[in-house]
Amino acid sequence: MPDNVDLLLLNGPNLGALGTRKPEVYGRTTLAEITATVRETVAEAGYGLRCVQSDTEGELVRAVHENADCFGAIVNPGALMMAGWSLRDALECFPAPWIEVHISNLWAREPFRHNSILSALSSGVISGLGADGYRIAAIALLHRISLPAGVS
Amino acid sequence: MPDNVDLLLLNGPNLGALGTRKPEVYGRTTLAEITATVRETVAEAGYGLRCVQSDTEGELVRAVHENADCFGAIVNPGALMMAGWSLRDALECFPAPWIEVHISNLWAREPFRHNSILSALSSGVISGLGADGYRIAAIALLHRISLPAGVS
Amino acid sequence: MPDNVDLLLLNGPNLGALGTRKPEVYGRTTLAEITATVRETVAEAGYGLRCVQSDTEGELVRAVHENADCFGAIVNPGALMMAGWSLRDALECFPAPWIEVHISNLWAREPFRHNSILSALSSGVISGLGADGYRIAAIALLHRISLPAGVS
Amino acid sequence: MPDNVDLLLLNGPNLGALGTRKPEVYGRTTLAEITATVRETVAEAGYGLRCVQSDTEGELVRAVHENADCFGAIVNPGALMMAGWSLRDALECFPAPWIEVHISNLWAREPFRHNSILSALSSGVISGLGADGYRIAAIALLHRISLPAGVS
Amino acid sequence: MPDNVDLLLLNGPNLGALGTRKPEVYGRTTLAEITATVRETVAEAGYGLRCVQSDTEGELVRAVHENADCFGAIVNPGALMMAGWSLRDALECFPAPWIEVHISNLWAREPFRHNSILSALSSGVISGLGADGYRIAAIALLHRISLPAGVS
Amino acid sequence: MPDNVDLLLLNGPNLGALGTRKPEVYGRTTLAEITATVRETVAEAGYGLRCVQSDTEGELVRAVHENADCFGAIVNPGALMMAGWSLRDALECFPAPWIEVHISNLWAREPFRHNSILSALSSGVISGLGADGYRIAAIALLHRISLPAGVS
Amino acid sequence: MPDNVDLLLLNGPNLGALGTRKPEVYGRTTLAEITATVRETVAEAGYGLRCVQSDTEGELVRAVHENADCFGAIVNPGALMMAGWSLRDALECFPAPWIEVHISNLWAREPFRHNSILSALSSGVISGLGADGYRIAAIALLHRISLPAGVS
Amino acid sequence: MPDNVDLLLLNGPNLGALGTRKPEVYGRTTLAEITATVRETVAEAGYGLRCVQSDTEGELVRAVHENADCFGAIVNPGALMMAGWSLRDALECFPAPWIEVHISNLWAREPFRHNSILSALSSGVISGLGADGYRIAAIALLHRISLPAGVS
Amino acid sequence: MPDNVDLLLLNGPNLGALGTRKPEVYGRTTLAEITATVRETVAEAGYGLRCVQSDTEGELVRAVHENADCFGAIVNPGALMMAGWSLRDALECFPAPWIEVHISNLWAREPFRHNSILSALSSGVISGLGADGYRIAAIALLHRISLPAGVS
Amino acid sequence: MPDNVDLLLLNGPNLGALGTRKPEVYGRTTLAEITATVRETVAEAGYGLRCVQSDTEGELVRAVHENADCFGAIVNPGALMMAGWSLRDALECFPAPWIEVHISNLWAREPFRHNSILSALSSGVISGLGADGYRIAAIALLHRISLPAGVS
Amino acid sequence: MPDNVDLLLLNGPNLGALGTRKPEVYGRTTLAEITATVRETVAEAGYGLRCVQSDTEGELVRAVHENADCFGAIVNPGALMMAGWSLRDALECFPAPWIEVHISNLWAREPFRHNSILSALSSGVISGLGADGYRIAAIALLHRISLPAGVS
Amino acid sequence: MPDNVDLLLLNGPNLGALGTRKPEVYGRTTLAEITATVRETVAEAGYGLRCVQSDTEGELVRAVHENADCFGAIVNPGALMMAGWSLRDALECFPAPWIEVHISNLWAREPFRHNSILSALSSGVISGLGADGYRIAAIALLHRISLPAGVS
Repeated sequence: MPDNVDLLLLNGPNLGALGTRKPEVYGRTTLAEITATVRETVAEAGYGLRCVQSDTEGELVRAVHENADCFGAIVNPGALMMAGWSLRDALECFPAPWIEVHISNLWAREPFRHNSILSALSSGVISGLGADGYRIAAIALLHRISLPAGVS
Repeated sequence: MPDNVDLLLLNGPNLGALGTRKPEVYGRTTLAEITATVRETVAEAGYGLRCVQSDTEGELVRAVHENADCFGAIVNPGALMMAGWSLRDALECFPAPWIEVHISNLWAREPFRHNSILSALSSGVISGLGADGYRIAAIALLHRISLPAGVS
Repeated sequence: MPDNVDLLLLNGPNLGALGTRKPEVYGRTTLAEITATVRETVAEAGYGLRCVQSDTEGELVRAVHENADCFGAIVNPGALMMAGWSLRDALECFPAPWIEVHISNLWAREPFRHNSILSALSSGVISGLGADGYRIAAIALLHRISLPAGVS
Repeated sequence: MPDNVDLLLLNGPNLGALGTRKPEVYGRTTLAEITATVRETVAEAGYGLRCVQSDTEGELVRAVHENADCFGAIVNPGALMMAGWSLRDALECFPAPWIEVHISNLWAREPFRHNSILSALSSGVISGLGADGYRIAAIALLHRISLPAGVS
Repeated sequence: MPDNVDLLLLNGPNLGALGTRKPEVYGRTTLAEITATVRETVAEAGYGLRCVQSDTEGELVRAVHENADCFGAIVNPGALMMAGWSLRDALECFPAPWIEVHISNLWAREPFRHNSILSALSSGVISGLGADGYRIAAIALLHRISLPAGVS
Repeated sequence: MPDNVDLLLLNGPNLGALGTRKPEVYGRTTLAEITATVRETVAEAGYGLRCVQSDTEGELVRAVHENADCFGAIVNPGALMMAGWSLRDALECFPAPWIEVHISNLWAREPFRHNSILSALSSGVISGLGADGYRIAAIALLHRISLPAGVS
Repeated sequence: MPDNVDLLLLNGPNLGALGTRKPEVYGRTTLAEITATVRETVAEAGYGLRCVQSDTEGELVRAVHENADCFGAIVNPGALMMAGWSLRDALECFPAPWIEVHISNLWAREPFRHNSILSALSSGVISGLGADGYRIAAIALLHRISLPAGVS
Repeated sequence: MPDNVDLLLLNGPNLGALGTRKPEVYGRTTLAEITATVRETVAEAGYGLRCVQSDTEGELVRAVHENADCFGAIVNPGALMMAGWSLRDALECFPAPWIEVHISNLWAREPFRHNSILSALSSGVISGLGADGYRIAAIALLHRISLPAGVS
Repeated sequence: MPDNVDLLLLNGPNLGALGTRKPEVYGRTTLAEITATVRETVAEAGYGLRCVQSDTEGELVRAVHENADCFGAIVNPGALMMAGWSLRDALECFPAPWIEVHISNLWAREPFRHNSILSALSSGVISGLGADGYRIAAIALLHRISLPAGVS
Repeated sequence: MPDNVDLLLLNGPNLGALGTRKPEVYGRTTLAEITATVRETVAEAGYGLRCVQSDTEGELVRAVHENADCFGAIVNPGALMMAGWSLRDALECFPAPWIEVHISNLWAREPFRHNSILSALSSGVISGLGADGYRIAAIALLHRISLPAGVS
Repeated sequence: MPDNVDLLLLNGPNLGALGTRKPEVYGRTTLAEITATVRETVAEAGYGLRCVQSDTEGELVRAVHENADCFGAIVNPGALMMAGWSLRDALECFPAPWIEVHISNLWAREPFRHNSILSALSSGVISGLGADGYRIAAIALLHRISLPAGVS
Repeated sequence: MPDNVDLLLLNGPNLGALGTRKPEVYGRTTLAEITATVRETVAEAGYGLRCVQSDTEGELVRAVHENADCFGAIVNPGALMMAGWSLRDALECFPAPWIEVHISNLWAREPFRHNSILSALSSGVISGLGADGYRIAAIALLHRISLPAGVS
């Protein structure tokens, strides 16, 4: 492993409001706290963390292209899981493994949240574990990128 | 926490064949190896592990009822995610948190695997992380059951 | 009427847990209590009662074949109403009238409970009357089998 | 229980022709005979019976509002089970328990009869027991309204 | 043929306004004019004509039952072709042949007019021939009821 | 504007029970109070108000035809929004602008209330504003009919 | 009207076998007999009749183009009502009125016969009147083409 | 009421072009004119008006979060009613009442405009009243926020 | 070919009742007779036959795994063709060719029998040939496994 | 059995190109080779074989009518299994048993090949056995027509 | 490139009538004029042009097989885009690139024209460019076949 | 034609990455190269070219409004073809002809790419011709805008 490598943490629309927005659904942990936890988790394995949050799909598309040199990503697309086809096309080109995270259990919510258009492209999906899901995703991603090439 | 408490690891049809069955999809790790890893992971937190694997839905239904005193569960329903309504009704009564695990990424496979009839009842879903998904689920479950009552 | 004839009471998966499982939906009466009430009701009309409960569809299939000499049946298929096609094929061969009972009002619950694949084969359906539905079904079944042949 | 209380027997379109209309489906018992049987059944428990039959949905709507003081109802909506949304809205306001009755087994008939828009609002549904279904419904309704408040 | 026999002409909601209502769709002939033409046509074959028009489905249901002694009927259900299930149940019991008429070509109009819930029960359907469709239906009905029993 | 002109206020099934029927959904204002408010609102602009409420679709159909000389209408079809095709056909011929009002927010209720078969024919739709919706509709209708011909 | 003008009678696949093929559905009248009746009917009004029957859609397409000088047509497309899109495109260009005829009542048969892709283009549809339907169609067509231009 | 309080007027994509874009559908009134009318209307009740129009969903999302201190809102989402799930999630957190406005009658237009993914969250919906719909919404919103807490 | 090799004959739920169960659909030949015929047929080609019939899906799953050394299989899944996803997953791992047999013509029966979830995995499907279908399948299987590797 | 009787082998569009067209799907056996094999197989039982292949549905329709005196048929409709409704209507009249053959396993291919509109009319279906499927069908057909009348 | 090579221009049903048939949809250019333009365009690149137009699908199927030596094709299937499955199977075997052309913009027309069953097999699709679309397709096809093998 | 006129080339999300992103699908030509080719092509006819590429739908909406003075446009919406309703509304107002281009053959890809919500508004659609499709679109657009007004 190179001594200076990064992972990407990508958060979509409304996730900047985490901790205040509908806490009964999304919990009270803020995005800053989540970011700190993830950063700490991946740092233990020697990785840096680049963080992007935007409410605009086009900026997330650009972020995916501009961070294509990362060794992996954790992506919470927020509501873009439903019609974010441009983000989907961008992620389809992302060359490293990435894990899709949703804070709430999508299948216990409205039917329009039962299907993410991004999931088929991800390495894995984690849903319903609350803010802890980000930490879990980081642990899983670290395991995934530690495997020899060709092993999944 | 009481000093002698257990978690449940429940595996559905065909999962006894893990490691030999379609390794390009499910990997080469056997159920015994997975069980050992999970047991080790939860033991560090002071929990025991009860393990049930069956190819027959009715036996899994009974296992859910008989292990209702566990503090949590990890459930890989296998193909029962598609029409295992009896298992669903049993899990609906399971009083502790449980996490649904799928080894492969369901959404990257056939359409009939894109929807699990169990997911809405679970605390969370982990899919696509390979055999490591069980370990990840154990970590997540331990976090989940360590929270004070009423906090999710 | 012969002096020693039986009716069949068939209960599907999870119904052994009646009285403790989700009492806000299914009530607090146990299967033993229900069985006693039905037995008493049909005994007044001179019938015996054979009772089978199983969590495994295959055992219910066998029970239908083995009790084909009964004069009628009361069937609560539980979750097998949704995908219990083998039980359906078995009941299609059952030569006597049978009544399908559901404790809760299926149409006031989740959409996947709004259609039973068995109903078209039954003599009648009773849903939503709670544990009392079994007694009601017994009364109805006794009336039905008391009719001259060819009258429905 | 007050010493002078009534139940409502509501019959929808075409049910005035019972006994003559398609007897191979609906049997040969007339509505008058059915009414007499129900009246007798509920009289034994000390209840009176108010009976309304109409081919016009608006008159049934008014009947539901005007008989809102009844202690319970037996409702055979006939073909209004399919698009009688006004009757549905009226029944939604009916303050006492009511049971939906269908003479024939709806699920053994044409697909458009497999779903009643009223059922979700009822206390229970009885289908396929022939004219005897009214008597059965009366027995069930009497049981239902004899329960202490809050017990279902 | 008896020397004093009648046919039934049944018209549903809004058809009393024929000739003034949306003439670009339904033409300028009034219901009175249509009735006169039909009466004349069937009179030549020795039949009388009973005519019922109502905007209320319940009254049409009653008309079907009360005119069950007619030798045949011409039915324009108007918008009841879409959700007039009570009328459908009544017509299912009508013992003589009847022909369904629609003035406009249903399939050239809105999709919700492409399927009549009544058609499967009729002897035949005539659609799109304008007011002349009633005369055509009368000619066809006369031919139909002139056939020996058992020939169709 | 002529000095003696009327608007029509048309209310469908169950709306006579406003104020008492499911007040948590429809509020506590009675139809009489609503009518008074609307009458007062349109009177300020010099219009009279004709009011029709019926639980029977056929009577509403006739009311539409008989009041075709009104300068505009406010229509709350109640449950006829779902299958009131006869009312739809009548309104299609109504020559003046009309506004559809629903007291509750249809889209926050059951799916079968999410689509009104009448809306495409109206000048506009107002939903969810409670009893005040009628007053709002009156204000909007007055504005609409004050526009020069050909301006919408 | 010119003194030498023709109508077209177009019959699709399998209709050459009329009278022998499934007589319980299509009757025992042969196509030759039907043709004779239609020819006689239109001859009374001074029209000649051109007749085309083919089992091959392409030949019917050509027939429509080659007979575009006819004053009207009677078309029984047989099974091409289901997927005869080429015939549909040809008929869309046919400049005169034409009437679609089906011998059996399509809506009383299999669901795939409930919708004809041609009907929206026709002047009218006649279904279920047996072999007599052709004569009826001829009478209707004669009436239709006798109307002044612009009147329908 | 505090003496210095604001309402929010939020307009989505393309609405900056109002008055010039497809005037036969949206009319000739510009957004500036509409804004002036709404400002005047709410000023009479002592409210200020904050106005945001953007063609970019992300900016609207931010506007909803940043104006969460308003006492109410009028929202015309434009085409975001169809797939603006991020805006939907933002509005779900907006703490005050808001009314959804559409200039044209959505149900008289293309089918994809018949369902707004936002409507279920709004206090009410106004559609088809043209530019006047904004004024109407303002009147309705003022009434709505004048009600005591807990009254709807 | 080795001198001691076996084929597998797998029969699902209710097939033990062959010969007595609905003979008008499934014929009068018993499973024992069928087995004898198949055994004789494959014996001529030097193969042995292992036979498993079970009403329980889990036992069939195990049978597939335990007989994975067979050179081919004949599988009649019975009603498991509809929701036997566990059996499907087991058969997906079966390394030799197998042929799916259904006694009746599935497409001439109820719609829910028109699609087998197993068929896509089989080497071929034989349906509707009655009890003889097993013999036919054996002949076909023998041909199939006699081909050189890589030829299909 | 008469000493000079024939069976029909009917092949639809593109099947003349067998052996060269997409051999990885349909194999390398030509139609001539298949025909020879079938002819030989049925000759052993004393039957002759008439063979028709056409790319035009109309010619196949005629072939079915013209060979209605055959004692049975083997039909590979090719792509006409999808929209060959005219062929379907012809086969519906074919008085002898016939078996539908498809070379490839339809259910392992594109979804539009998963349903044949002809299958419900056949005596049986054989799919996926390659060119050998024709021989298998011949064996099955011979067995089928050797049964006494009324036995299936 | 060989000095004597051809391209194929294939036109389906009704396209022989181009220029006279519905000119407001398909324009006024005849097929002869289009053919001349295409011939000229490809001649400049040294290719000859073979032209086939037929109203019969079977003849088009044969044309595809017989012209399989062409270097490319331009195909306007006309209405066969909707159910021409036999043509589809033929084109699936065509070994050279081919481009699908439609004169009108399919997506601006009836819904049944929004999907061509052929498109997935083509190298590209051109729709809505009028008669000029053929010339455009020729230019595109020439470019396409000029690319080195393996470059697309 | 004025001597200084422009066409618009509009490219949606991810298209800035052309040439590097998934070259096996989109080829290796960069957007700069494509732009140069298109510029050169239209320059030959005397037109200038304005180019806009953005990953954000709102910016594309603005570009459409701001370039409404162009004489035509070439639009590759990228993934906005799926849910870019705001772009659709903007393009609906674009006063000049425009052609929709897709580099890959949409119908040979995932089902969600088989329908573009923009196509019905375009003058024509070109799909599957690779980077050359832009040049082809330019040629077609030049032809289209060279036609006299009112000719299409």
